[in-house]
Amino acid sequence: MDYNKLLENIHQAILPYAQEGKAADYIPELAKVDPDQFGMCIHTIYGEVGAIEQADTRFSIQSISKVFALAMCLSIEGDNLWKKVGKEPSGTAFNSLVQLEVEHGIPRNPFINAGAIVMADILYSHLEHPHEDFLRFVHEISGEESICYNKQVALSEREKGYLNAAIANLLKYHGTIENDIEDVLHFYFMMCSIEMSCRELSKAFLVFANHRKKFDYAGITLTSSQVKRMNAIMQTCGFYDEAGEFSYLVGLPGKSGVGGGIVAIYPLQYAVAVWSPRLNSRGNSVMGIKALELLTTETQSSIF
Amino acid sequence: MDYNKLLENIHQAILPYAQEGKAADYIPELAKVDPDQFGMCIHTIYGEVGAIEQADTRFSIQSISKVFALAMCLSIEGDNLWKKVGKEPSGTAFNSLVQLEVEHGIPRNPFINAGAIVMADILYSHLEHPHEDFLRFVHEISGEESICYNKQVALSEREKGYLNAAIANLLKYHGTIENDIEDVLHFYFMMCSIEMSCRELSKAFLVFANHRKKFDYAGITLTSSQVKRMNAIMQTCGFYDEAGEFSYLVGLPGKSGVGGGIVAIYPLQYAVAVWSPRLNSRGNSVMGIKALELLTTETQSSIF
Amino acid sequence: MDYNKLLENIHQAILPYAQEGKAADYIPELAKVDPDQFGMCIHTIYGEVGAIEQADTRFSIQSISKVFALAMCLSIEGDNLWKKVGKEPSGTAFNSLVQLEVEHGIPRNPFINAGAIVMADILYSHLEHPHEDFLRFVHEISGEESICYNKQVALSEREKGYLNAAIANLLKYHGTIENDIEDVLHFYFMMCSIEMSCRELSKAFLVFANHRKKFDYAGITLTSSQVKRMNAIMQTCGFYDEAGEFSYLVGLPGKSGVGGGIVAIYPLQYAVAVWSPRLNSRGNSVMGIKALELLTTETQSSIF
Amino acid sequence: MDYNKLLENIHQAILPYAQEGKAADYIPELAKVDPDQFGMCIHTIYGEVGAIEQADTRFSIQSISKVFALAMCLSIEGDNLWKKVGKEPSGTAFNSLVQLEVEHGIPRNPFINAGAIVMADILYSHLEHPHEDFLRFVHEISGEESICYNKQVALSEREKGYLNAAIANLLKYHGTIENDIEDVLHFYFMMCSIEMSCRELSKAFLVFANHRKKFDYAGITLTSSQVKRMNAIMQTCGFYDEAGEFSYLVGLPGKSGVGGGIVAIYPLQYAVAVWSPRLNSRGNSVMGIKALELLTTETQSSIF
Repeated sequence: MDYNKLLENIHQAILPYAQEGKAADYIPELAKVDPDQFGMCIHTIYGEVGAIEQADTRFSIQSISKVFALAMCLSIEGDNLWKKVGKEPSGTAFNSLVQLEVEHGIPRNPFINAGAIVMADILYSHLEHPHEDFLRFVHEISGEESICYNKQVALSEREKGYLNAAIANLLKYHGTIENDIEDVLHFYFMMCSIEMSCRELSKAFLVFANHRKKFDYAGITLTSSQVKRMNAIMQTCGFYDEAGEFSYLVGLPGKSGVGGGIVAIYPLQYAVAVWSPRLNSRGNSVMGIKALELLTTETQSSIF
Repeated sequence: MDYNKLLENIHQAILPYAQEGKAADYIPELAKVDPDQFGMCIHTIYGEVGAIEQADTRFSIQSISKVFALAMCLSIEGDNLWKKVGKEPSGTAFNSLVQLEVEHGIPRNPFINAGAIVMADILYSHLEHPHEDFLRFVHEISGEESICYNKQVALSEREKGYLNAAIANLLKYHGTIENDIEDVLHFYFMMCSIEMSCRELSKAFLVFANHRKKFDYAGITLTSSQVKRMNAIMQTCGFYDEAGEFSYLVGLPGKSGVGGGIVAIYPLQYAVAVWSPRLNSRGNSVMGIKALELLTTETQSSIF
Repeated sequence: MDYNKLLENIHQAILPYAQEGKAADYIPELAKVDPDQFGMCIHTIYGEVGAIEQADTRFSIQSISKVFALAMCLSIEGDNLWKKVGKEPSGTAFNSLVQLEVEHGIPRNPFINAGAIVMADILYSHLEHPHEDFLRFVHEISGEESICYNKQVALSEREKGYLNAAIANLLKYHGTIENDIEDVLHFYFMMCSIEMSCRELSKAFLVFANHRKKFDYAGITLTSSQVKRMNAIMQTCGFYDEAGEFSYLVGLPGKSGVGGGIVAIYPLQYAVAVWSPRLNSRGNSVMGIKALELLTTETQSSIF
Repeated sequence: MDYNKLLENIHQAILPYAQEGKAADYIPELAKVDPDQFGMCIHTIYGEVGAIEQADTRFSIQSISKVFALAMCLSIEGDNLWKKVGKEPSGTAFNSLVQLEVEHGIPRNPFINAGAIVMADILYSHLEHPHEDFLRFVHEISGEESICYNKQVALSEREKGYLNAAIANLLKYHGTIENDIEDVLHFYFMMCSIEMSCRELSKAFLVFANHRKKFDYAGITLTSSQVKRMNAIMQTCGFYDEAGEFSYLVGLPGKSGVGGGIVAIYPLQYAVAVWSPRLNSRGNSVMGIKALELLTTETQSSIF
């Protein structure tokens, strides 16, 4: 299949939605990103690649980094991880900002902020050099050594990060995190600040799609079963309170970030990344969801 | 593949869990069911069948009936259905019994009780003979004319059904349901009271697995895309507040009932039904989940 | 003191607020009441009386009847009452309509709807002729035999009473009420439908103000201490989620009703009733609160 | 009246409860206080005094300090204060630790922690030397210059104060507090760390009881009406989720602290302070509440 052509057709078809939504602007670094950018890249397990528009422009992957953190935590802790964090979807954001995310100190799943802060704490405890080790893992699964943190983004996030600080304090109060709050938050915001392009993201996520291949990167190893279960969690929890909607429309496991990126996986077939900064009211890229909905419809590639 | 042998092996392997959990006993009809029964049946889209133990014993399908109701509502209302009911998972049962299930009158998804009561109201409004029409649809997709309601179960449910009556009143207060509350509740409990065997259930659910086949039963028609989207909803919402856990362990869309039945689907491959009355604390069959976890592990048939 | 003059001055002073707020219109009987009426009456324990404007016009006392129900329940159950209903204020109406009012089946206080439904159930169990006995008690403490229920109001309330029916079902589910739901709701709505004038209400509430006088009406007896404690509950719970505001502005225990009536007590001094149908957003009479605020300011009669 | 004799009789009568409850031990400084101490002191507006047992032993007044903060904030902000903090009781602690205390950034009342942190922020903004100015106000209304902070207590509270830090971050996120979080929390914990004896507390609170006397201390001035309204807030919000119970049993406005102190006021009559470290499950002194219940019963001095 001509994947470049496929993606170009999709891009054409969704152009009417190009001005919908609003890019994140809660920190200056995100506010100044040109909102009218769009990139998309697909990697199949057979080595095929399609890449269009700004597929090589790096952007702030934000919450997509939580998938990398989950892979590392699962490798380190195994199923003990689930004593500190749940794996149930968080449902419609009812009135939860802080409290409901943390029941008796246990966040509902690893992809809400509370859960990701717990993962940051676990990695901070187990990794000798947390910042370097996390980055090396990302380098190895993406095959791209030049990927790095954006420290200015991380600093800005911390400055405005009162809500995440509230969550971290609540987790500390419940005894769920063990390290110093500032250390954990700093590491958490650093992970979120990583910048990658659609090409790099889709290549990195191909390792989750291709769960029959040995998973061993920078010392992080997962069994085929563990990779499949990670995909299950992306399916049920990957899109905040829009997980059901995304599952309904797109039918693939995936993960979105507030920077406008979305990654999705068709197990044993492909990984795809799309990026466009304008977000819907639930914090997911408008063009990104449209593009993926069309991709699975066109290629009949929903997992259902 | 010898599916009888496969299921028998699975049954042997999970026997150690045979006494775990507790059967539902909130109405006398469920309380008097022998809790030590087990049945399992699989139908593949290629016509293969495996059936063991009490695969032909009928039991109260309870919430599994909500999938049939959803098929009918989607056929009748199309995407307008989602104005009256959401499609997001309900998350961990936080302290919701009534209120949190219904936000501004809109239940979170069609498989929680509030959502199913809304579906009962829709069907009650649109079907000429709701009770007969619903049963005829079940007859046609299962190919078994002798399936029927258990009126005594429905009556007992209504007698003890204060919580569902509270939900129905709340929905009426919000204007989400339009018919008389007692009529809606009676129809709702009748649907839940249907009795089917594992063989009948897995045959009926094969139509959801085989979404490439034309869906047209008793006048209820769905497109391939609609069937796939129903599967997506089963994946994210089919197991109450254990949807994430089931997705993680089993990796298939499905639906459970408090009578001890579970149905699951491997799209374009098979449908499987399992029944064992003892439930875990979240209301799902202990042996049922174990059997399905083993089935997908053995056959490598998770959708992820 | 010339109480007529005092009340007239107050009325003059609050006239600028006469058009603020909106009368209850959720049932036709309340909707058709002329909203521009105002009545006020004060009775002191020394036999003084002041009465102005429509002080003798009867109106629907609605939730004010809950104080009468509480007197009867306290007489019948003593402190056992507090096993079935709490005495803590309900706080700001957070998102509670149903669920939060009833924690584990125990309503927070006797003056929220859930608490009053529990009291209706208790009276229904203990009184030989609930409807007659309740009315006789009201006759005796007010000294006015012609007071009666408005059955049409009670019927309309029941017809629109989905929220209260939801609450009653939830209470039944928790086992807090023992009688048939329809019987309890009918009795509850009948109590609320009683019609009294300001003069009758202030005379009836004088028995709560004058707690040194023997309390014995229609077989309902209370000690001085019990009456004082009823006043304490009126102080903390008498005004829904505006209890703190009323306490702050007026500084007297009291009870409001959605019909626009408010009764307040200055222990060992006086009882006062005021009526004006236009309500603020929290369901309390705008002119009523203004009048009482001015009364306590002018007469320096806050309990604080 | 012989107030020493009165208090002694009360003390004798409540001795059977001396071992009930458990002293606060969440910081070492509170944990090491001898839990078997008891002190009580009453000051009437006529200059009478009664004082028994450890009436002159200083203890950590903790949340009682919030009344002093409220007096200062009301003097500084007037009714503008109520834009940043509510005055409604918080009701039964439902599942609130953090979130429910702060709705859209507005704490429910000034006496819950969230409200007191907002007051600390206000004072921090308006006072030239917050720590000194607060202490000078306490010196002046108590007439005792030697009262001071216990910095070790304040430091320990901050070290363990993850919950309060979560609240402060949430308030900052909502924009309700304007100063640096650490500055505000430090000042908040300092205010709570003040140590006073029952004699000093009852003398200080006499100024709230005697609202006809000019209120002007260290530049903090309040009108008679403002003092009465402060008393109203103590009545409805002074005892966490036991406000209704305290109002019912004791019938006086007051404020408790986790150090085991309780202060209550009988307007225009007396102020009373009692101290005993063992707390009930709601964080109020067991002996303290018993003593005050008996005091108001014996002296017929409930405000109702």
